[in-house]
Amino acid sequence: MEQFNNVSIIKKANTYQDGKVSSRTVLFEDGTKKTLGIMLPGEYEFSTDLKEEMDIVAGHLEYKLPGEDWKEINGSGVFYVPANEKFQLKVYSVVDYCCSYLAE
Amino acid sequence: MEQFNNVSIIKKANTYQDGKVSSRTVLFEDGTKKTLGIMLPGEYEFSTDLKEEMDIVAGHLEYKLPGEDWKEINGSGVFYVPANEKFQLKVYSVVDYCCSYLAE
Repeated sequence: MEQFNNVSIIKKANTYQDGKVSSRTVLFEDGTKKTLGIMLPGEYEFSTDLKEEMDIVAGHLEYKLPGEDWKEINGSGVFYVPANEKFQLKVYSVVDYCCSYLAE
Repeated sequence: MEQFNNVSIIKKANTYQDGKVSSRTVLFEDGTKKTLGIMLPGEYEFSTDLKEEMDIVAGHLEYKLPGEDWKEINGSGVFYVPANEKFQLKVYSVVDYCCSYLAE
């Protein structure tokens, strides 16, 4: 099973939307950060600071990046969100994701 | 902010109850294991294999251990569940927990 080694994890969760979206922050030795999260069905909008790699590990959702059409991931897939942008999600079944924050 | 260092974390989440309960597995250098989890409001029953320390980091719930009355935690608190037992939970607001599996 894939795992991240030699990392630190912050004990307290990040929760949004009455807990329908939650994540755990993982800190790497090289100073980078990922969050491992769960999203329950619903419609969400998020904003980025850094560029983000959204690695969908499991679940079914549609996502909309700025200036693009809605796209679907059912099972697994990856998309990237530019820094300082908003993006929308429609989550249809529980999504397990790994978000990497990229310095570019 | 409290964090666990020099650990491994399994990328894939553990999910139960249509995602209303989810957790992440954290592996420690000494061979011990914790899960960091989120529970949304609802009623749940869980079973233990090992003895468990349930450290409630945030949230409001009642718990019932075998042969005991319902007890309440609102905010934070800790309880222990013996090995090979069932316990019940009534979660009233989103619970953030840290479960330690104890060898005894």
